Amino acid sequence: MIGAEALLRTLVGSGVNVCFANPGTSEMHFVAALDAVSEMRGVLVLFEGVATGATDGYARMTGAPAVALLHLGPGLGNGLANLHNARRSRVPVVTVVGDHASYHKRFDAQLESDIESVARNVSGWIRRTARAEDTGPDAADAVAAALGPPAQVATLILPADASWSDGAAPAAAPPRPRYGAVPAAEIESIAATLRNGQRCGLLLGGAALQERGLRAAARIAAECGIELFAETFPTRLARGAGLPAVERLPYLAELAKGQLEGLQHLFLADARAPVSFFAYPGKPSYLVPDQCDVGVLAGGADDVPAALEALADAVDAGSDSGGAPAARPRRPGGELTAETVGQALGALLPEDAIVSDEANTSGIYMTGPTAGAPPHDWLTLTGGSIGQGLPVAVGAAVAQPGRRVIALEADGSALYTIQSLWTMAREQLDVTVVLLSNRRYAILRMELARVGATASGERASAMLDIGDPDIDFVALARGLGVPASRPGTAEEFTTELERSLATPGPSLIEAVVPSIF
Amino acid sequence: MIGAEALLRTLVGSGVNVCFANPGTSEMHFVAALDAVSEMRGVLVLFEGVATGATDGYARMTGAPAVALLHLGPGLGNGLANLHNARRSRVPVVTVVGDHASYHKRFDAQLESDIESVARNVSGWIRRTARAEDTGPDAADAVAAALGPPAQVATLILPADASWSDGAAPAAAPPRPRYGAVPAAEIESIAATLRNGQRCGLLLGGAALQERGLRAAARIAAECGIELFAETFPTRLARGAGLPAVERLPYLAELAKGQLEGLQHLFLADARAPVSFFAYPGKPSYLVPDQCDVGVLAGGADDVPAALEALADAVDAGSDSGGAPAARPRRPGGELTAETVGQALGALLPEDAIVSDEANTSGIYMTGPTAGAPPHDWLTLTGGSIGQGLPVAVGAAVAQPGRRVIALEADGSALYTIQSLWTMAREQLDVTVVLLSNRRYAILRMELARVGATASGERASAMLDIGDPDIDFVALARGLGVPASRPGTAEEFTTELERSLATPGPSLIEAVVPSIF
Repeated sequence: MIGAEALLRTLVGSGVNVCFANPGTSEMHFVAALDAVSEMRGVLVLFEGVATGATDGYARMTGAPAVALLHLGPGLGNGLANLHNARRSRVPVVTVVGDHASYHKRFDAQLESDIESVARNVSGWIRRTARAEDTGPDAADAVAAALGPPAQVATLILPADASWSDGAAPAAAPPRPRYGAVPAAEIESIAATLRNGQRCGLLLGGAALQERGLRAAARIAAECGIELFAETFPTRLARGAGLPAVERLPYLAELAKGQLEGLQHLFLADARAPVSFFAYPGKPSYLVPDQCDVGVLAGGADDVPAALEALADAVDAGSDSGGAPAARPRRPGGELTAETVGQALGALLPEDAIVSDEANTSGIYMTGPTAGAPPHDWLTLTGGSIGQGLPVAVGAAVAQPGRRVIALEADGSALYTIQSLWTMAREQLDVTVVLLSNRRYAILRMELARVGATASGERASAMLDIGDPDIDFVALARGLGVPASRPGTAEEFTTELERSLATPGPSLIEAVVPSIF
Repeated sequence: MIGAEALLRTLVGSGVNVCFANPGTSEMHFVAALDAVSEMRGVLVLFEGVATGATDGYARMTGAPAVALLHLGPGLGNGLANLHNARRSRVPVVTVVGDHASYHKRFDAQLESDIESVARNVSGWIRRTARAEDTGPDAADAVAAALGPPAQVATLILPADASWSDGAAPAAAPPRPRYGAVPAAEIESIAATLRNGQRCGLLLGGAALQERGLRAAARIAAECGIELFAETFPTRLARGAGLPAVERLPYLAELAKGQLEGLQHLFLADARAPVSFFAYPGKPSYLVPDQCDVGVLAGGADDVPAALEALADAVDAGSDSGGAPAARPRRPGGELTAETVGQALGALLPEDAIVSDEANTSGIYMTGPTAGAPPHDWLTLTGGSIGQGLPVAVGAAVAQPGRRVIALEADGSALYTIQSLWTMAREQLDVTVVLLSNRRYAILRMELARVGATASGERASAMLDIGDPDIDFVALARGLGVPASRPGTAEEFTTELERSLATPGPSLIEAVVPSIF
């Protein structure tokens, strides 16, 4: 058996059966092996950033890694931004980077580069397969490393000769990841603090933001009167009617700081102590109040929901976790704005929907109206590198067919990985793309003032303006095989949204909205 | 003066007056400073790969660096593939990568990453500016490092606080680069070998492929009866009627090896000894025949045209360098194929055109029919990472307004950096994009067989097929503001090409052609 086939068989045996691929010559044996290993689904993408972002979305919804198949160092480079985001999502991802045959590297051919150096930035585990015989064991180790805990990006560099040579065999699947249990004494110590009457907060992130964690946290809050926060950019937040509602810390550091003001203890459940997204002149980077102690309840290597439940029991919390009331806004009328788009979304969001939110400035109108919609998952821009939303929607839709995915996408961000639309069309993924087009890098207009830059002139202003020429997303979507429309009013938008949600396969609705900034 | 303004003023004072930018929050002071420093032209792009590829195209046509302004590590990641290509082009490029304020880095905020590690892969010179006072001197050093010789990518990491703090001043421009003179004894020694009757070849690359170098090489060849070759993927090749025609070594290693067969001496003029682009099972990587000596006439740090002229004089070559006869094919008729597209191009290519060639498999029909067209420059995919052609066209058009740029682009490659079209529209660049759409990764179909992979099945084959759904490049172009058409016959294509060449600003012509493979 050649190395490529042993690699694929090991992956499949380890529960990894989706590969988002943008292959080149050095990956041809991997591609050819797809014919032999029918359990591996190959999903072709037209740009590597789509592959890496899709593995992120896939892992968020399944907890399991998919493979991103990339072509040498430059291919890894093209996928790097979304691997950065995946690293911040703290999800399991396996990237297989094809490389030149081992004996070819010393000739420094055109595509030669130092793959390890590039991978190091985003990948907690990197290995270069030496021989065909190692492909199986290396693949199993890559899956194990990706799963952790903690989950991470694992990068396997696969020389073409290891891929094409004979003598390989599949390896056994790695053991399932074992999450740690937080010691009872630590739980008791935190419980004692929560009951001592001081102002306490519990910051939830990562695995704490799915249903089990949220319910336990809500029980604790109800019992102890502490404040609950969610991290600003959750990997996956369960929300909607019947689920405990937890406010995300605001993106604006000044607002986040205000929310944390007066706390004496802040405990972290799979979250990091909050810091400002960017630095601003004269403003603090660290947002925890000076007098506030920070303690860790559980981290990425722990069984986080279990730790929260143990804490709830330790404080003798009642069993009722409460939940947001079911409530939907009415279908909006009048002008099409980010606000009315949000209302339409709230009016129509289907049960079990998955929202991939990269609407940026327009996004602030999306969360309120959907708070009482039927339960759904909300995925955000975890690593701050725009161009993540559409690929994450691809990955989520591949992971969970039968659930409607809604990509809330800003025009500026969409253009980084617009190639995602083609894969949505090719795979007929049930994705509704709501393209909020304000024809500006609106967030930068806001940031320009916040960093204290004075740019009253036309030349600087033009660098934040993507409306010259206007980008026609209906044309772009159609060009990539996705049906699209551009409603002119809130009513028309709502009708289009309803139609899209009811129609299998992808569609894009461009909402040209006024910019907030 | 704040650091950002001193940086810009130093760049402008050093002859760097174009910035291809995709900025974010950490670059806002750089952007704001564009209002103060009107000599710096800011060209907005929607994706970093466009910025980095454009600096490559700009440098190829001017010999001078432009700036690519990038946003933190992920922005550099998005630009990495085309910086890889620029490194292989051996052109001067300055990248300015904005970073968090220095005091903010330890907080590991969302966008924090190890920029130096990523840059190291592509950049021969990397510096992190420490304080505002250093921005001027660091900018001057970056320009000096980029210019070399040899020319290279220079990366300046600019923390936001160095950018926004006061106390900076512009620095003096660096001295002009000084190329080395090849010692007369070395020239004489090579001349002696060339005259000794053995079979000799001269492989031209880089700076040897512009007019001066070509003419000197042609004089040498005429005098000594040696064989001339051009490297497979030239940075910039001067060609056309009246210019000496030099065959490029074929991409296919087996053909290149055949061409070099029987040589006893191969001399390199700004080129590297030829190696196979990829490794193939059982085939050699190094393409120089066993019995052949390889010698270096001149490298990237030398005055290459002067070295060739000195060698021509040393062998007492005549002054006539010859040149390709003026000849154009007739306007083609009949079916629209890569071949008839090539004939139309040959029939109409304007004098002084700049061709950015990323037509890949279809491109083999483009060079023959244009060999006798009026003199023009031919730019190729130097580093092998597709997605370079359109950005290079952007950069070349910004560099040399008044010259028509023709981007010969394959469908698969075009999708990596399709955002280039928007910048062409915004800046009204005189670019004709000929989009050769065969709806396949055709080169991979060829490579699949060459690497010995057997993929007769549908699943592997589907991974090389980008025709499901068909990509509509006319829609994509219009969506990004570029007029576009899709002629159905060779006559119609020729008419559209003629119209595009005569019309200021960009346009795209999609030629749906049969795949060669």
